[in-house]
This record gives sequence, structure tokens and C-alpha cells, in this order.
Amino acid sequence: MKNTNQITVAVVQQSCSDNKQDNLEKTATAIKSCKQQGAQLILLQELHATRYFCQNEDFSQFSLAETIPGETTNFLSCLSKEHQVIIVGSLFEKRAEGIFHNTAVVFDNDGSLAGTYRKMHIPDDPGYYEKFYFTGGDAMHHNINGFQPIKTSIGNLGVLVCWDQWFPEAARLMALSGANLLLYPTAIGWDPSDDKTLKTNQQTAWQITQRAHAIANHLPVIVTNRVGFEADPSGVTAGIDFWGSSFITGPQGEILAQASIDETILTATIDLASTGKLRQTWPFLRDRRIDAYQGLLNRYND
Amino acid sequence: MKNTNQITVAVVQQSCSDNKQDNLEKTATAIKSCKQQGAQLILLQELHATRYFCQNEDFSQFSLAETIPGETTNFLSCLSKEHQVIIVGSLFEKRAEGIFHNTAVVFDNDGSLAGTYRKMHIPDDPGYYEKFYFTGGDAMHHNINGFQPIKTSIGNLGVLVCWDQWFPEAARLMALSGANLLLYPTAIGWDPSDDKTLKTNQQTAWQITQRAHAIANHLPVIVTNRVGFEADPSGVTAGIDFWGSSFITGPQGEILAQASIDETILTATIDLASTGKLRQTWPFLRDRRIDAYQGLLNRYND
Repeated sequence: MKNTNQITVAVVQQSCSDNKQDNLEKTATAIKSCKQQGAQLILLQELHATRYFCQNEDFSQFSLAETIPGETTNFLSCLSKEHQVIIVGSLFEKRAEGIFHNTAVVFDNDGSLAGTYRKMHIPDDPGYYEKFYFTGGDAMHHNINGFQPIKTSIGNLGVLVCWDQWFPEAARLMALSGANLLLYPTAIGWDPSDDKTLKTNQQTAWQITQRAHAIANHLPVIVTNRVGFEADPSGVTAGIDFWGSSFITGPQGEILAQASIDETILTATIDLASTGKLRQTWPFLRDRRIDAYQGLLNRYND
Repeated sequence: MKNTNQITVAVVQQSCSDNKQDNLEKTATAIKSCKQQGAQLILLQELHATRYFCQNEDFSQFSLAETIPGETTNFLSCLSKEHQVIIVGSLFEKRAEGIFHNTAVVFDNDGSLAGTYRKMHIPDDPGYYEKFYFTGGDAMHHNINGFQPIKTSIGNLGVLVCWDQWFPEAARLMALSGANLLLYPTAIGWDPSDDKTLKTNQQTAWQITQRAHAIANHLPVIVTNRVGFEADPSGVTAGIDFWGSSFITGPQGEILAQASIDETILTATIDLASTGKLRQTWPFLRDRRIDAYQGLLNRYND
């Protein structure tokens, strides 16, 4: 008898050029390979249709933004329907004139749009000028939790995006709203001018913080990151060496699959029934001190 | 010129017998060694004066509880004054008839009681019947944050205890109230009857979740755990193999010192000035979506 709690997931880790069509075609080829390896759910990296265009503040880059539905979502929807696979994509969304988001889109395995997630935590530091391009998600202003998992035919996807990965609050909120999986499309890399120790510490911290979300919430975690060097168009910084290293963990943070820094796909089979068993052994959700967490709603408790 | 931001910290990892005086004497010897190695702050493990007595529910164990001040705190205060060192201890506190806590105590380097922390998250699962012995900390009922760092001459200590380690909320609240360090006295081990994979996953999860608190908050983390096998007095379970493996990390979760599963002391020098620098590079606290975290105050968002 087939265990319907067991699902096979995949990630696509790729480099991107200035040519959106080329990038999408490369993604389509990878999706086909993932499907051939049995994937039922495929996670694409953050802003996979374009270069990571946030290295400088450039008005002309807004021309990359798309509506939903639009070119990229139509493309992903067709692939999802063709391969009967769930696809989690990511794009620069134009929601209205002057309102742009860094948005994840989920297509169920019939090509229908299951839902979107607009990145909640927006970074802004040299080389990652996202506050210029994106405003933060506001789903909670419609009286809905801003960290709402997206329902699909295989479970509730707690999709978060890149910078969100550093915030245990985001993962916890997804878990508390019934997520069965946590997914992180990301775009992070090294400043080539940094020293080796700092590079190692950064990359290790990036993996540990996401494994810890699995552990704290007893949920599998799927992460995909881009690869390749992308120059800073302004020439101010040394550019970004995207470190790839996508990975898939089980619900105790144990590594099930681990990519290198090359273009690749990665698959793993995860057991969604483990979450309940682990939450019995170590019942963290039972013991949260919700009477004492008010201070989490403050910037600083001074 | 001496860098006053650099402090040397130590942990004492020991086994415990039924004889409280023996346990305390062993601790005193270890504290002396730590001081000789330059320690300015010494973290003792959870309930270091006794066996881990929570393996079964036994009324007679309440006789182990002590007031503050009391025998154990007087002992620690004297050691702190003698060696001019900050000591973070842990005891079974009798606060009033019928009100008992699992309490951490901090003595500044002049032997004065700098503060106490009453464990907020109380576990209860086979072998760890803490809800029978301890009620949770309630400092917030006095209009104070329940996760309040303790001020000492070398910085604000975010002392948390064992089960607290699984809750990113606790670490975050300490950081938001100005902690300069996070400290976890713990008592955790393997069920000898579990298989090797589960044991590895549990121990790895335990370390990763605490390294992640360092990363999310850019604070050094100091963890000490007991060692040795302690039988279950009730004979119901196979007892606990305490896994030791105490460790000290820097503010990116990088391991600075790592113990084995033997009795030992561990020291490391940490730089408190790193926190500010790292919070500039990756400004997580700037970008927390405090407008969207209300759901963290719920048991479940259903």
C-alpha cells in the first residue's frame, strides 16, 4: 500500500543571465528532470527568471516586474499542468503602479494558482537594496495572518522568501497556521572581497538557522539558492558569488539532500507523518509560554 | 591596552551522585580550575547539586528543594567571592509551601546575588516529569518581562534553562531586553533503548537549535550539560545517558569550544563587541515585522 504521507520534493539550483527567456527555458528543462526523478513538488530559487537585480538602485530594473497572472506565472502554470507537479516559483511582482513585491507563487499539480506569498521581511544592505524595489507583504491587513501557508493537494506549504529565513518568528507563524512543510527560495552569496572565515561563518549560519526552523517546528525544510557570479552593475561592490548549497531536511533538521555550488537539481523523499510523532516526543507547541511573549511585538524592550 | 569587550567564559560539565555535598565539592574544584584558566564567568549545569531527580514523580524528592538564600546559594556565593568570578548556578527552589521552581542564580564576582531566573518553559514527558516538581516562572506578572537578562559587572546575562532552549521566542526576548550573552544550563540525555539514528538526530538538533539562537540574535551562546548515566528510580524507563557535549559559540553560532561526553571544563574567550558589528551587517532586529507577529501570542492560529 502506498504511504500517501511520503512525498518526493525537488529543488532547482541554477545560474541566471540577463535573458529572461533563457532563464525560464533552463528552469523548464530542470523541472522536466525533477519530474523524471519522481518529484511531486518542485521549489525554484528566488527571482529565478532574472539576474538578482537588487545589487544597485536602478529605476530601469522596474521593467522586469510582472503582474500575476503574467508571462512568468503563465509559463509556470503550463509546466505545472504538463508535468502534473506542484511548482513553487518566485518573481518581481507589479501589484499596482508604485506597489511592487518579491512574491512566491504556488501552482498546484493541475496548473491552477494555489496561492501567493509576498515576502514579509525585506533586507537592505550594500548589494541587496531590496527596500528600494519591494514593499513588504501586507496580507494581515486583510484580517488574515501575513504568514499563511498555501493549501495544495499534497499539504500546506509554508513558503517564505530569503531574508525571512533569519526570523524564527516567520517559521513559527507558518507552523502555528498549519504548515506541513517550510520552503525557502533564496538568493544569497558571498562578497568576493570578504575573508574566508567570514564567508564560512555566513554560509554555516545560513544553513543552521534554517535547519533550526525544522527543529523548532518539527517540519521538513526545503531551501534553494542560486549559483554563479553576478557583477554589481554600478561597480561599487565586488559583486556577489551566489553560494548555492541548496538543501532538504527532515523534521528534526536532519539533512536529506545537499547541493554543492554548481548548477544542479536535488530530490528527497520526506514523510509528512513524522511531524505529529515528533511533536509528541518533544511537545514544544504544548509548552509555548504565550502568556509571556507580548514583548515579541516590540521593536526593543527598553 | 586591554580590550574590555573580551571576556573569558567557562562551563563545568560533571556527573552527579545522590550526595549533594560531594556534588558541590566537585563543582568547587572545577570552578577553581576554571579560574586558573582565566575564566571571568562560569556556567554550571542544570540542577548541578543533585541527581536529575525528575525521572519519576516522587513526593520525597521535594526534600531536595532549597530556599534562596540557602545552602547551595551560600556555597556558590562564597566561591564567587573567593575566586572573584561570576557564577551561574542552578537549583530546585522552594519559594513557598507548594510553589517550587527550577531556578538559575547568578552571583557577581563579589559574591552578591545579581539575580535569578525561574525556568519559563517546563517539560513533561516520560523521564522528565518536571511539571510535577516545578511551576513556571512568573516574573512578568510583576509587570516585568519574564525573560529579563541579569545585570552583572561584565554584561547582561540572558540565562535560560534547558527546555527553554527549544523556544526561539525565549532567546529573542532576552535579546530584545538587552542580553549580551545567552546561557543554557541543561540536563538532557539519551534513552539508552533508542536507536542510534534517533540519538544522533536528537543530539544534533539540540546543538543546532542553540547555535541558531546565537545566529538569530548575534549573541554568544554558552551551554553546559551533565554527563553520566542515571537510573530511573521507578524502573519504568531505561534511565538517562546524559550526553554532555557542552559548547560555547560566538555570535554567528560558530563553535569556539566543544566538550565530549566526559567530565570536563571548557573555556573560551568571546568578544562582546562583535554583536554590534554583526547586527550592522545583517540587521535582523531592524527588519522584524512586529506589525505581523500577533499570532505568536496564540496557541494555534486555527
